[in-house]
Amino acid sequence: MTQDLSRRKLRAGIVGGGQGSFIGAVHRIAVELDGQAEVVAGAMSADAGRAESSARAWYLQRSYTSYRDMALTEAGLADGIDFVMVTVPNHLHYPVVRAFLEQGIHVVCDKPMTFNLEEARELVQLVEQKKLIFALTHNYTGYPAVRHARHLVSSGAIGTVRKVLVEYLQGWLMEPEENTGNKQAAWRTDPSKSGIAGSIGDIGTHGENLLEYITGLKIKQVCADLTAFVENRQLDDDANMLLRLENGAKGILTCSQIAAGEENGLVIRVYGTQAGLEWHQMEPNTLILKQQGQPSQVLRAGQPYMSPEAQAATRLPAGHPEGFLEAFANVYKLVIADIRRSGAGEAPLGGYPTVYDGLRGMNFIVKVVESSQKGGVWVDF
Amino acid sequence: MTQDLSRRKLRAGIVGGGQGSFIGAVHRIAVELDGQAEVVAGAMSADAGRAESSARAWYLQRSYTSYRDMALTEAGLADGIDFVMVTVPNHLHYPVVRAFLEQGIHVVCDKPMTFNLEEARELVQLVEQKKLIFALTHNYTGYPAVRHARHLVSSGAIGTVRKVLVEYLQGWLMEPEENTGNKQAAWRTDPSKSGIAGSIGDIGTHGENLLEYITGLKIKQVCADLTAFVENRQLDDDANMLLRLENGAKGILTCSQIAAGEENGLVIRVYGTQAGLEWHQMEPNTLILKQQGQPSQVLRAGQPYMSPEAQAATRLPAGHPEGFLEAFANVYKLVIADIRRSGAGEAPLGGYPTVYDGLRGMNFIVKVVESSQKGGVWVDF
Amino acid sequence: MTQDLSRRKLRAGIVGGGQGSFIGAVHRIAVELDGQAEVVAGAMSADAGRAESSARAWYLQRSYTSYRDMALTEAGLADGIDFVMVTVPNHLHYPVVRAFLEQGIHVVCDKPMTFNLEEARELVQLVEQKKLIFALTHNYTGYPAVRHARHLVSSGAIGTVRKVLVEYLQGWLMEPEENTGNKQAAWRTDPSKSGIAGSIGDIGTHGENLLEYITGLKIKQVCADLTAFVENRQLDDDANMLLRLENGAKGILTCSQIAAGEENGLVIRVYGTQAGLEWHQMEPNTLILKQQGQPSQVLRAGQPYMSPEAQAATRLPAGHPEGFLEAFANVYKLVIADIRRSGAGEAPLGGYPTVYDGLRGMNFIVKVVESSQKGGVWVDF
Amino acid sequence: MTQDLSRRKLRAGIVGGGQGSFIGAVHRIAVELDGQAEVVAGAMSADAGRAESSARAWYLQRSYTSYRDMALTEAGLADGIDFVMVTVPNHLHYPVVRAFLEQGIHVVCDKPMTFNLEEARELVQLVEQKKLIFALTHNYTGYPAVRHARHLVSSGAIGTVRKVLVEYLQGWLMEPEENTGNKQAAWRTDPSKSGIAGSIGDIGTHGENLLEYITGLKIKQVCADLTAFVENRQLDDDANMLLRLENGAKGILTCSQIAAGEENGLVIRVYGTQAGLEWHQMEPNTLILKQQGQPSQVLRAGQPYMSPEAQAATRLPAGHPEGFLEAFANVYKLVIADIRRSGAGEAPLGGYPTVYDGLRGMNFIVKVVESSQKGGVWVDF
Repeated sequence: MTQDLSRRKLRAGIVGGGQGSFIGAVHRIAVELDGQAEVVAGAMSADAGRAESSARAWYLQRSYTSYRDMALTEAGLADGIDFVMVTVPNHLHYPVVRAFLEQGIHVVCDKPMTFNLEEARELVQLVEQKKLIFALTHNYTGYPAVRHARHLVSSGAIGTVRKVLVEYLQGWLMEPEENTGNKQAAWRTDPSKSGIAGSIGDIGTHGENLLEYITGLKIKQVCADLTAFVENRQLDDDANMLLRLENGAKGILTCSQIAAGEENGLVIRVYGTQAGLEWHQMEPNTLILKQQGQPSQVLRAGQPYMSPEAQAATRLPAGHPEGFLEAFANVYKLVIADIRRSGAGEAPLGGYPTVYDGLRGMNFIVKVVESSQKGGVWVDF
Repeated sequence: MTQDLSRRKLRAGIVGGGQGSFIGAVHRIAVELDGQAEVVAGAMSADAGRAESSARAWYLQRSYTSYRDMALTEAGLADGIDFVMVTVPNHLHYPVVRAFLEQGIHVVCDKPMTFNLEEARELVQLVEQKKLIFALTHNYTGYPAVRHARHLVSSGAIGTVRKVLVEYLQGWLMEPEENTGNKQAAWRTDPSKSGIAGSIGDIGTHGENLLEYITGLKIKQVCADLTAFVENRQLDDDANMLLRLENGAKGILTCSQIAAGEENGLVIRVYGTQAGLEWHQMEPNTLILKQQGQPSQVLRAGQPYMSPEAQAATRLPAGHPEGFLEAFANVYKLVIADIRRSGAGEAPLGGYPTVYDGLRGMNFIVKVVESSQKGGVWVDF
Repeated sequence: MTQDLSRRKLRAGIVGGGQGSFIGAVHRIAVELDGQAEVVAGAMSADAGRAESSARAWYLQRSYTSYRDMALTEAGLADGIDFVMVTVPNHLHYPVVRAFLEQGIHVVCDKPMTFNLEEARELVQLVEQKKLIFALTHNYTGYPAVRHARHLVSSGAIGTVRKVLVEYLQGWLMEPEENTGNKQAAWRTDPSKSGIAGSIGDIGTHGENLLEYITGLKIKQVCADLTAFVENRQLDDDANMLLRLENGAKGILTCSQIAAGEENGLVIRVYGTQAGLEWHQMEPNTLILKQQGQPSQVLRAGQPYMSPEAQAATRLPAGHPEGFLEAFANVYKLVIADIRRSGAGEAPLGGYPTVYDGLRGMNFIVKVVESSQKGGVWVDF
Repeated sequence: MTQDLSRRKLRAGIVGGGQGSFIGAVHRIAVELDGQAEVVAGAMSADAGRAESSARAWYLQRSYTSYRDMALTEAGLADGIDFVMVTVPNHLHYPVVRAFLEQGIHVVCDKPMTFNLEEARELVQLVEQKKLIFALTHNYTGYPAVRHARHLVSSGAIGTVRKVLVEYLQGWLMEPEENTGNKQAAWRTDPSKSGIAGSIGDIGTHGENLLEYITGLKIKQVCADLTAFVENRQLDDDANMLLRLENGAKGILTCSQIAAGEENGLVIRVYGTQAGLEWHQMEPNTLILKQQGQPSQVLRAGQPYMSPEAQAATRLPAGHPEGFLEAFANVYKLVIADIRRSGAGEAPLGGYPTVYDGLRGMNFIVKVVESSQKGGVWVDF
């Protein structure tokens, strides 16, 4: 059934993201940034009071305490939500996503996609069967400089990729924050909520996704060494790994949440037979292109020489910094476009991370943990 | 008459900002970013078709082709706008602002405040008389690092200010863009629309405002050398000036729109008897604190050591870059809070640039132009 | 009389630079760096003990306590010095230089060239008359990136120069160091030794020289505002000035020795009709080339694309940082080549700062001080 | 037999380093930089003409074409060399070093120490037996910021080390330079001259040494993945490896000579339980200290807060950049001091890389190659 979604803002719902959550506000801002969608309903907390106050703070039209109720009710409303944003801890991703998909509601879900690989596989099937839009918030793919990096690689500007270095360094879990009442720390370090992975699920998968997004290459083998440095922590808070890519390229991925003083240091460097690329998430509007024996070039978001996909992800002239929220919004921008297309019976155009990326991410987690548990051996993907 | 504005999003209107405008979208995103206001009405273009298509693109509820009609109509509606955002060329600021103030509607206006000093003085009187909120979008004061810089100076952390270096360098007018159909370039270089100043009105006033905002000091004297480097350009596209501040501090302000390759290079450095500060708009989340004989400190937005006023202007954890739009939204955040207070009959808290800053900016323009026209002599403020 | 200087290291002498001096060791290292000269004699201090111990520490062959004796004696020796390095406070430059020139000995002298303008004029005459090599240690011209910047300007790569921004910021005199036994601070702030200028003589002249060296343009007019911020200090410790260059370009030069936390921040930016250049002394191996609408280029010393004059000033492959001493040595490299040419009766090739640069520097000081003393008025050069 | 070496410059000899060599000039400049030694004799090339012209260019007193002759002759001269600098390809290190040690002449040798592990073990024995000074030019340990980093770790400032990231990226061998007549490339990629390792011998060992120097920790296990990306190249031009250190810390070391556009990118980051450190060889005068929840500190060579060992390695005030040559000279400074002590019968003070470091480096190469050849397995040290 097609719907005319072209004449109005889309209506979004949210599960999770109640007061105190960092990521809830990120989703709200990102989804509304371009004026193409509005958050109107939410099941923002299982706690009734918190759900209510969170919804009121956002002036939501409808507030729920159960995501199941929400899915059912919204599906039945004439002005029900067009899609839902799922921002709960990992172990709840699958049931929540399933509940909405089953009601025919499109989904945008946080990463890692599910609690375990089995759920991920089931989700792939469900999405394929329902023919609904499902997007995963590997939000770093939304930066214009990242999109331009992907463009440069795919257009051959750096030649054949030989070496990839990815790092994602944070320091916020260098102490046992999970014992101090920090909710974010608590669920991320709890295997019953986070799954088998700590840092590699939380941030390592962003690195893996970014690597594959930019290079267009799949990881083929990994050899990983995970550590939980903080006493009594059950999940890894640090990971070092060697990578081999499908084309023979080699790589390194390191992520850490115990790297003292690091904030959100996601960095990728790609070296090909013709040139190299370097991008830093904390200075996201700059992409450095390195050519042997020639001056490095400082490419900047918003400049006319950037590729159309980078331009489409840029709202401001060069020198007016855009950041994390704008990049997040760029993922939503493509998702919203596809939901509109879906309403018109048109095939999706994609460009955002999908259920298959989510499956790859879950597989990545499994392989990395397996490699490390076996003492740091090579494991095939 | 008080109104309960606490239970709903505020309703914003816009004058100007139609399709093709850069600053219109900036205002829309900024005002809506925190989910506390919504743009519902606009007179986005004098051209009826463009006004209509612009309004439709934003899903506005009401579209006008005349700002006068808009002011009158909105003032009479039960759900009329609470405030208006004025984003037209300089020569229209005053009549537009006046139209809304006279209808009892709060105003947020782009800088420079008016076409000339006389209008600025009249506007001060009008605002004082109407007791409405009037804010000027010196948006760079919205950056958390800028607010922290102001905090550090006012709290004595750098001692008595001795020297201030302000630069604002752009390159986009290094060629005669005004002859190529570039509307932004056309009105900014046209004395009938821009006023007596080119670059110093467009960007120099931002520098002046930032200097006074951070240091808390007033400029007392200026000696300026303005140039129009591009042939046949009637207004300055470059300015160098020496400054003397009220406390005996000395300074430099340079702005340019012909600095090849510069994007939006607003930089301020302040040196006091105890320490120095450095901030770059293009890496806005960083503030450098310099102490003689001690390591420089890299202060970062989102960190716990930042001052409450900086924290209040930060939405994300450190390392998740916020940018121009978020800073702009921070100005709106304070304005919206004051409009709500106004509705409740409470006195405004301020914190954003006001009509007095606007008057100072217009006076700055007049003095700088006078100094330069007299050959580069010192002129008292 | 020609001499065969091609088969041996040149023999250098030094006046000043005794133990405790920073600049003495700089000269020794720089002059000997390329293995083409050796310091063999010195009058390193008027204090006999200090002269002797300083000479012994350097294994000098001959030590003097009087520069006059030294000049006379060395001139009469078969293996006397080929040239002398003059590293005494400003008020002694002229008599020392004169003593050696009169004995037919080439001279390398620290800047500013003399104590006052009259001495500078006499020195020009003396050098012209004696036909000896005279070089001034505006050592920053020795950096390969600076030489490449000059090359780019002269070859037209940035078009016609429009705007130049020069800053030289230090913080080491922000407190009254001259009262604490700091010899370097004492003579620099003492008009009887330093002359009429403080910071502008010590570092401002470097800025002026660098500007003229890179742009190939002369300063035509200056409007200066000098300040002595530290109580009871008699000479400027801070200066801001507007510049007008001979071709109509505009500029700013600011120097300070009270800029808290700044080390040796000499920075120059030049904007032309085609492109811009930026160079930072504290990251000296990098030169940034900015082109409107194109990626900035990061030019690096040691790379094959650098100009021959930059290559000739580079000893190491790119990425192996060369610094202050190597740049200083690059000035000596050209001086030594010319002294050898002089020995062979060949005309000098130059490339290093000369007596005419020194005269311009002294004139700069005079004009800047005059401008400031008159309240900050424009003064013609 | 003690000798009074306190009253004169030491006399140095050199083997290798003839014209066209990059490293020969580095040694000459470094050893002479502080005015405490002079190169007087050399066997700079096996080619007689080149040996002679190289020696003449340096004004050497004695030139040889055979290092054996040189060792024998110099040992017999009253003013023979005090020590020799060995700057030949790897396969010649051992015989050359042996020849001089056997004549009682101290040695400074390039890394990696020998052609293979057996030679390294023999060399340890020989040095122990002869009681002569033997130093290895892991020159990066000479940077003041590196010495300060070591000081900070050893003094507990960063707590217990948890994670170390070392990278050493170059791009100069990304094409088959060895086929173009590039001598430097030719021997480094030739197993008969370089040994079993390419990039890891040439630059990887610098990384390994730097890691152990700064952290004071030994590598215990390695898992390595070496690649020769350039067709027909027999030795690795790229290496990625996981490390485990003796205290349980984890690490990564990556080195490459095919990283397009990279110059000499040696970077080390160390994260401890209290703080982190970051140092970049290409901006060597800066060391960043990172503390969770506090501002990062930018530590600068030449500042008064630096440790005595850093101060002793600094010649200039902060902000006057010192570079690669000065760091190299700092290694020589300590070596020269020990040779003088040796002459006076005093025990050496060390501080520079020794034969044991060289042995560790050779062992590192063997283990890394073994790990990689076995498919990338963990190998114990």
